[in-house]
Amino acid sequence: MIEPLSEAERADALDGLPEWDYDEARDAITRSLVFADFVEAFGFMTQVALMAEKANHHPEWRNVYNRVEILLTTHDAGGLSGRDVEMAEAIDAIVDE
Amino acid sequence: MIEPLSEAERADALDGLPEWDYDEARDAITRSLVFADFVEAFGFMTQVALMAEKANHHPEWRNVYNRVEILLTTHDAGGLSGRDVEMAEAIDAIVDE
Repeated sequence: MIEPLSEAERADALDGLPEWDYDEARDAITRSLVFADFVEAFGFMTQVALMAEKANHHPEWRNVYNRVEILLTTHDAGGLSGRDVEMAEAIDAIVDE
Repeated sequence: MIEPLSEAERADALDGLPEWDYDEARDAITRSLVFADFVEAFGFMTQVALMAEKANHHPEWRNVYNRVEILLTTHDAGGLSGRDVEMAEAIDAIVDE
Protein backbone atom coordinates (compact mmCIF):
# COMPACT_ATOMS: atom_id res chain seq x y z
CA MET A 1 0.00 0.00 0.00
CA ILE A 2 1.30 3.42 -0.96
CA GLU A 3 0.39 6.37 1.28
CA PRO A 4 -1.15 9.46 -0.35
CA LEU A 5 0.56 12.78 0.37
CA SER A 6 -0.74 14.86 3.27
CA GLU A 7 -1.92 18.39 2.48
CA ALA A 8 1.36 19.85 3.74
CA GLU A 9 3.42 17.38 1.70
CA ARG A 10 1.32 18.15 -1.36
CA ALA A 11 1.79 21.91 -0.94
CA ASP A 12 5.56 21.37 -0.65
CA ALA A 13 5.60 19.13 -3.72
CA LEU A 14 3.60 21.61 -5.82
CA ASP A 15 5.99 24.42 -4.83
CA GLY A 16 8.75 22.35 -6.42
CA LEU A 17 6.72 21.63 -9.59
CA PRO A 18 5.81 25.04 -11.04
CA GLU A 19 4.82 23.55 -14.42
CA TRP A 20 2.19 21.29 -12.87
CA ASP A 21 -1.38 22.09 -11.82
CA TYR A 22 -3.29 20.41 -9.04
CA ASP A 23 -6.54 18.67 -10.06
CA GLU A 24 -8.59 18.59 -6.85
CA ALA A 25 -11.38 16.37 -8.23
CA ARG A 26 -8.88 13.62 -9.09
CA ASP A 27 -6.27 14.37 -6.38
CA ALA A 28 -3.84 14.44 -9.29
CA ILE A 29 -1.33 16.73 -10.97
CA THR A 30 -1.50 17.70 -14.64
CA ARG A 31 0.82 19.24 -17.19
CA SER A 32 0.05 20.32 -20.76
CA LEU A 33 2.85 20.43 -23.32
CA VAL A 34 3.04 21.76 -26.86
CA PHE A 35 5.75 20.52 -29.23
CA ALA A 36 6.79 21.55 -32.72
CA ASP A 37 4.94 18.69 -34.37
CA PHE A 38 3.69 15.11 -33.92
CA VAL A 39 7.15 13.56 -34.23
CA GLU A 40 8.43 15.70 -31.37
CA ALA A 41 5.32 15.00 -29.28
CA PHE A 42 5.38 11.25 -29.79
CA GLY A 43 9.16 11.14 -29.34
CA PHE A 44 8.65 12.72 -25.94
CA MET A 45 5.86 10.25 -25.13
CA THR A 46 8.15 7.36 -26.03
CA GLN A 47 10.83 8.60 -23.63
CA VAL A 48 8.23 8.94 -20.89
CA ALA A 49 6.77 5.49 -21.69
CA LEU A 50 10.14 3.78 -21.25
CA MET A 51 10.77 5.62 -17.99
CA ALA A 52 7.23 4.88 -16.75
CA GLU A 53 7.50 1.17 -17.52
CA LYS A 54 10.83 0.98 -15.70
CA ALA A 55 9.28 2.77 -12.68
CA ASN A 56 6.13 0.60 -12.94
CA HIS A 57 4.11 3.80 -12.62
CA HIS A 58 2.13 4.97 -15.65
CA PRO A 59 0.65 8.31 -16.67
CA GLU A 60 -2.86 9.00 -17.90
CA TRP A 61 -2.32 10.98 -21.05
CA ARG A 62 -3.87 12.38 -24.17
CA ASN A 63 -2.23 13.40 -27.43
CA VAL A 64 -3.59 15.49 -30.29
CA TYR A 65 -0.94 16.14 -32.96
CA ASN A 66 1.68 18.33 -31.22
CA ARG A 67 -0.08 18.51 -27.85
CA VAL A 68 0.29 16.16 -24.89
CA GLU A 69 -1.75 16.39 -21.68
CA ILE A 70 -0.52 14.32 -18.75
CA LEU A 71 -2.30 13.46 -15.49
CA LEU A 72 -0.49 11.73 -12.64
CA THR A 73 -2.15 10.07 -9.68
CA THR A 74 -1.58 6.82 -7.81
CA HIS A 75 -4.52 4.43 -7.99
CA ASP A 76 -3.02 2.24 -5.24
CA ALA A 77 -2.87 5.26 -2.92
CA GLY A 78 -6.30 6.64 -3.85
CA GLY A 79 -4.68 9.93 -4.86
CA LEU A 80 -1.45 11.83 -5.26
CA SER A 81 1.63 10.13 -3.82
CA GLY A 82 5.38 10.57 -3.76
CA ARG A 83 5.58 8.34 -6.86
CA ASP A 84 3.71 11.00 -8.85
CA VAL A 85 6.07 13.70 -7.65
CA GLU A 86 9.09 11.60 -8.69
CA MET A 87 7.50 10.95 -12.08
CA ALA A 88 6.66 14.63 -12.59
CA GLU A 89 10.30 15.51 -11.87
CA ALA A 90 11.48 12.85 -14.32
CA ILE A 91 9.06 14.16 -16.99
CA ASP A 92 10.29 17.73 -16.42
CA ALA A 93 13.85 16.50 -16.89
CA ILE A 94 12.91 14.88 -20.23
CA VAL A 95 11.19 18.09 -21.37
CA ASP A 96 14.21 20.18 -20.39
CA GLU A 97 16.71 17.99 -22.23
CA MET B 1 -9.44 21.04 -49.03
CA ILE B 2 -10.69 17.59 -48.10
CA GLU B 3 -14.40 16.87 -48.50
CA PRO B 4 -16.29 15.42 -45.52
CA LEU B 5 -18.26 12.24 -46.13
CA SER B 6 -21.94 12.53 -47.05
CA GLU B 7 -24.45 10.80 -44.78
CA ALA B 8 -24.74 7.90 -47.23
CA GLU B 9 -20.96 7.55 -47.52
CA ARG B 10 -20.65 7.64 -43.74
CA ALA B 11 -23.29 4.93 -43.30
CA ASP B 12 -21.45 2.76 -45.83
CA ALA B 13 -18.11 3.36 -44.13
CA LEU B 14 -19.49 2.52 -40.66
CA ASP B 15 -20.95 -0.73 -42.00
CA GLY B 16 -17.40 -1.69 -42.93
CA LEU B 17 -15.99 -0.70 -39.52
CA PRO B 18 -17.92 -2.73 -36.95
CA GLU B 19 -15.39 -2.00 -34.17
CA TRP B 20 -15.85 1.76 -34.49
CA ASP B 21 -18.58 3.99 -33.04
CA TYR B 22 -19.84 7.20 -34.55
CA ASP B 23 -19.47 10.33 -32.39
CA GLU B 24 -22.13 12.69 -33.72
CA ALA B 25 -21.03 15.72 -31.66
CA ARG B 26 -17.54 15.58 -33.19
CA ASP B 27 -18.47 14.02 -36.57
CA ALA B 28 -15.79 11.48 -35.72
CA ILE B 29 -15.32 7.76 -35.20
CA THR B 30 -13.97 6.23 -32.02
CA ARG B 31 -12.57 2.89 -30.94
CA SER B 32 -11.61 1.71 -27.44
CA LEU B 33 -9.00 -1.00 -27.04
CA VAL B 34 -7.80 -3.00 -24.05
CA PHE B 35 -4.40 -4.70 -24.10
CA ALA B 36 -2.66 -7.09 -21.71
CA ASP B 37 -0.53 -4.35 -20.18
CA PHE B 38 1.15 -0.99 -20.81
CA VAL B 39 3.92 -2.43 -22.98
CA GLU B 40 1.35 -3.96 -25.34
CA ALA B 41 -0.73 -0.76 -25.37
CA PHE B 42 2.21 1.56 -26.03
CA GLY B 43 3.68 -0.85 -28.58
CA PHE B 44 0.40 -0.63 -30.47
CA MET B 45 0.45 3.18 -30.18
CA THR B 46 3.96 3.27 -31.60
CA GLN B 47 2.90 1.24 -34.63
CA VAL B 48 -0.06 3.59 -35.18
CA ALA B 49 2.16 6.66 -34.67
CA LEU B 50 4.58 5.59 -37.42
CA MET B 51 1.70 4.85 -39.79
CA ALA B 52 -0.05 8.13 -38.92
CA GLU B 53 3.08 10.20 -39.50
CA LYS B 54 3.61 8.52 -42.88
CA ALA B 55 -0.02 9.24 -43.83
CA ASN B 56 0.26 12.78 -42.39
CA HIS B 57 -3.03 12.15 -40.60
CA HIS B 58 -2.98 11.90 -36.82
CA PRO B 59 -5.36 10.43 -34.26
CA GLU B 60 -6.66 12.06 -31.11
CA TRP B 61 -6.00 9.48 -28.45
CA ARG B 62 -5.85 8.76 -24.77
CA ASN B 63 -3.98 6.05 -22.91
CA VAL B 64 -4.38 4.82 -19.35
CA TYR B 65 -2.14 1.81 -18.61
CA ASN B 66 -3.50 -0.99 -20.85
CA ARG B 67 -6.33 1.05 -22.40
CA VAL B 68 -6.24 3.17 -25.55
CA GLU B 69 -9.13 5.32 -26.79
CA ILE B 70 -8.84 6.65 -30.33
CA LEU B 71 -10.88 9.36 -32.05
CA LEU B 72 -10.54 10.03 -35.77
CA THR B 73 -11.81 13.11 -37.56
CA THR B 74 -10.37 15.40 -40.23
CA HIS B 75 -9.89 18.97 -39.07
CA ASP B 76 -9.30 20.16 -42.65
CA ALA B 77 -12.65 18.69 -43.69
CA GLY B 78 -14.57 19.89 -40.63
CA GLY B 79 -15.59 16.31 -39.90
CA LEU B 80 -15.27 12.69 -40.89
CA SER B 81 -13.55 12.08 -44.25
CA GLY B 82 -12.24 9.20 -46.30
CA ARG B 83 -8.85 9.70 -44.65
CA ASP B 84 -10.36 8.67 -41.32
CA VAL B 85 -11.89 5.56 -42.84
CA GLU B 86 -8.50 4.59 -44.34
CA MET B 87 -6.81 5.18 -40.99
CA ALA B 88 -9.45 3.17 -39.11
CA GLU B 89 -8.87 0.26 -41.51
CA ALA B 90 -5.10 0.55 -41.01
CA ILE B 91 -5.54 0.60 -37.22
CA ASP B 92 -7.81 -2.46 -37.37
CA ALA B 93 -5.12 -4.24 -39.40
CA ILE B 94 -2.50 -3.44 -36.72
CA VAL B 95 -4.84 -4.70 -33.96
CA ASP B 96 -5.55 -7.92 -35.88
CA GLU B 97 -1.87 -8.72 -36.49
